[in-house]
Amino acid sequence: MDYSKMSPAEVRQLIREGKITGQTSGMCDGYAQGNLLVLPMEQAYDFLLFTQRNPKSCPVLEVGDVGSRLVKRMANNGDIATDIPKYRVWENGVMTGEYTDVSNMWRDDFVYFLIGCSFSFEGELLAANVPVRHIEEGKNVPMYLTNMDCDEAGIFHGKVVVSMRPMPADQAIRAISITASMPRVHGAPIHIGDPAKIGIKDINNPDFGDAVTIKDGEIPVFWCCGVTPQSVVMSAKPPIAISHAPGHMFITDVKNSLLKD
Amino acid sequence: MDYSKMSPAEVRQLIREGKITGQTSGMCDGYAQGNLLVLPMEQAYDFLLFTQRNPKSCPVLEVGDVGSRLVKRMANNGDIATDIPKYRVWENGVMTGEYTDVSNMWRDDFVYFLIGCSFSFEGELLAANVPVRHIEEGKNVPMYLTNMDCDEAGIFHGKVVVSMRPMPADQAIRAISITASMPRVHGAPIHIGDPAKIGIKDINNPDFGDAVTIKDGEIPVFWCCGVTPQSVVMSAKPPIAISHAPGHMFITDVKNSLLKD
Repeated sequence: MDYSKMSPAEVRQLIREGKITGQTSGMCDGYAQGNLLVLPMEQAYDFLLFTQRNPKSCPVLEVGDVGSRLVKRMANNGDIATDIPKYRVWENGVMTGEYTDVSNMWRDDFVYFLIGCSFSFEGELLAANVPVRHIEEGKNVPMYLTNMDCDEAGIFHGKVVVSMRPMPADQAIRAISITASMPRVHGAPIHIGDPAKIGIKDINNPDFGDAVTIKDGEIPVFWCCGVTPQSVVMSAKPPIAISHAPGHMFITDVKNSLLKD
Repeated sequence: MDYSKMSPAEVRQLIREGKITGQTSGMCDGYAQGNLLVLPMEQAYDFLLFTQRNPKSCPVLEVGDVGSRLVKRMANNGDIATDIPKYRVWENGVMTGEYTDVSNMWRDDFVYFLIGCSFSFEGELLAANVPVRHIEEGKNVPMYLTNMDCDEAGIFHGKVVVSMRPMPADQAIRAISITASMPRVHGAPIHIGDPAKIGIKDINNPDFGDAVTIKDGEIPVFWCCGVTPQSVVMSAKPPIAISHAPGHMFITDVKNSLLKD
C-alpha cells in the first residue's frame, strides 16, 4: 500500500480499525500531522495558558471540549482516542504503557491538545528547494536543551528545547521567510548562528535525536521544538497524561500550505 | 501636555496617579494599546479557549496569572487595576459603574486578558500611506454584526463583529499584506467586497460606530473587531467582569511594529 497518496480520512480509518499501527511519517503527502497531549481538566487551564505564552514551542492546532474525543476543526469527524496509531500513557510523569487505542481509558474530564509539528514546515521547505539535512542523511532531527526559560504558567515551566537544521546563508534566509509565515507550526526560527549564545555547548552532541553533518560555511538554524511541551508536562508530573508515541501522529485534513495564516 | 511624545511608562504613571482620566487615543505615538477584560477564574478557562479558537476576533497580548494585577510581558511592571484611565464593571452582563481605579475591588480569583486592538494596525497602515477613512472623517470606525458564528467555547458564543475600512484596490492589497503580518492585532481581513456575503444588509447603516463615505470603485475591507469578545462575554452574563471604557486603553511598552511576528 502506498499511504503517501491516500487521503487523511482513509488512513485515519485504517488506524481506527487497527490496520495501521506504525509511524505516520510520509503518509498523506502534503497534509499536516499533529502531536497529541491529553490532560485532565485539573491541569488543562495551566497548560492552555502555557501554550498561549509559548506559541513558538506549543503551536496549538485544536483543543477539544472537556471530555470530548471529537476532532472537528482540523479533521472531519476525527476521534482523538482511536485515530493515532500508537499512544503513550504517563502516570505522575512516568510512562506506564503504550496502546493502539485509548478509548477504553477516556475520561469525562479529559482535554486533548493537538499541537503543530515541524513535519509541516519541512514539507514547505523541501517544496521551496531548501534541503533538510537530517532527511537527506536518514536521521532524526538533532534537538538541544537551551539555557532559555519557557514563559511559565501555573505548574508548567522548563527550558526551551530547539531543533537544528544547518544550511547555507541563502537557504537560511528562505527558510526564515517561509517558516515566519507558518506560526501554527513553530513559526520563524528562535536563533541562528552561534550555538553557545543559547547555551548549547557542543553542536555535534545533541540532547535528543541524531547529530547531522554541518558543512563548511553553513549556518545552524534553530527552531522551537515540540519536545518542549512534552518535557514540561512530564516534569510537572500530572497524575495522568496521554501523548502520541514518537512519530505516530494524528493526520489532519488540513494541508500544510494552509497553515499559513 | 503633548502625550503623543511621552513614553508609555510616563503616561501610565500619570494614569495611575489619577492625573489622566480621558481617552488614550493618540497617546505615546507608535506604541500598542490593548483592550481589557477581567473575569473570575470560574469563567477564565472558557474564555481562554474562546480566544484560542477565535484568534482573529480575540488576539491575546497577555493573560495574567490568577489573582495577579501585574503586566510584565507587554509592559515593564504595569498594574492592570490602576493603569487604565477608565474601567467599566459589569454584573450579570449589565454595566453597573465606571471607575478610574479598580484596585479596591480586585479579587484573588480574577484573571485579566489584555487583547490587541485595531489602533495598532491602523498606525501601520497610515505609516504605509494607506489612509483610513474614519480617521480622515473624524468618526468612529463603522462596525457590523455578521451572520458568521464565532467558534464557541464553553459558555461563550455569538456572531462575529467586523469593522470596515473602504479603500481603492491597490491600497486594499497593501492593507491585506500589512495586516496579515500582524496576527496579534486581528491579522488579515476576514472579508473583502460584497457586504451581503457576510450578512450585512446595509453598509451605510452600521450596527456600532459611524457610517463613513465609500467612494466610487472603493472596496469595503472587513476585519474582525475587538467588540466581539466584549459582546460574547456580556451575553454570557458572568457574575462579574471588568473591561476598559471605550477608547480608554492600556498603553503597552511594545511598539506596534513589533507586533509583527
